[in-house]
Amino acid sequence: MITTCVDVFVKEEHIQDFIEATKKNHLGSTAEAENLRFDIIQSNDDPSHFMLYEVYISQAGVLAHKETAHYAEWRDTVAEWMAKPREAKKFTMLFPATAEDA
Amino acid sequence: MITTCVDVFVKEEHIQDFIEATKKNHLGSTAEAENLRFDIIQSNDDPSHFMLYEVYISQAGVLAHKETAHYAEWRDTVAEWMAKPREAKKFTMLFPATAEDA
Repeated sequence: MITTCVDVFVKEEHIQDFIEATKKNHLGSTAEAENLRFDIIQSNDDPSHFMLYEVYISQAGVLAHKETAHYAEWRDTVAEWMAKPREAKKFTMLFPATAEDA
Repeated sequence: MITTCVDVFVKEEHIQDFIEATKKNHLGSTAEAENLRFDIIQSNDDPSHFMLYEVYISQAGVLAHKETAHYAEWRDTVAEWMAKPREAKKFTMLFPATAEDA
């Protein structure tokens, strides 16, 4: 399973806008067939710092996500709200080892 | 819900030892009543870099985890295998908003 951690730093005046737009992306993404997790978390130390924690069962699922309307809408909507370019880090899920265990 | 992201950098010669010890911690932790996720992920760019992605339903659950035998065993077992001190970052889960939605 493939995990992507996306660190996002948002301009302070757009934190609430970002949360609302990202909720839509969360709802669309968790409805995708290959998606296992699409958690949106906010730093306790820095409310302008968010992480998108995305887990897909396969690489095909990762690629399919990038083709969805909800991803494109999110990407374009939040672009101007970023305080700096977002950073995506790729990981491999070790445990849970399978989607059935998750 | 409370999320903790723990970045761990392991000495190369102990990567496999770390994976085995951390699997035990994963299995113990996911059996805790207040635990929602205890994912163990490994960086694709740097195999010595792991993240523990821990989600608890309440702060009481976070504290209870620290009192478990599996946590204490993991902490003591892996201590000498760290390439540098591990770093824990605290987040608040926004979406999914409830454990029932996760």
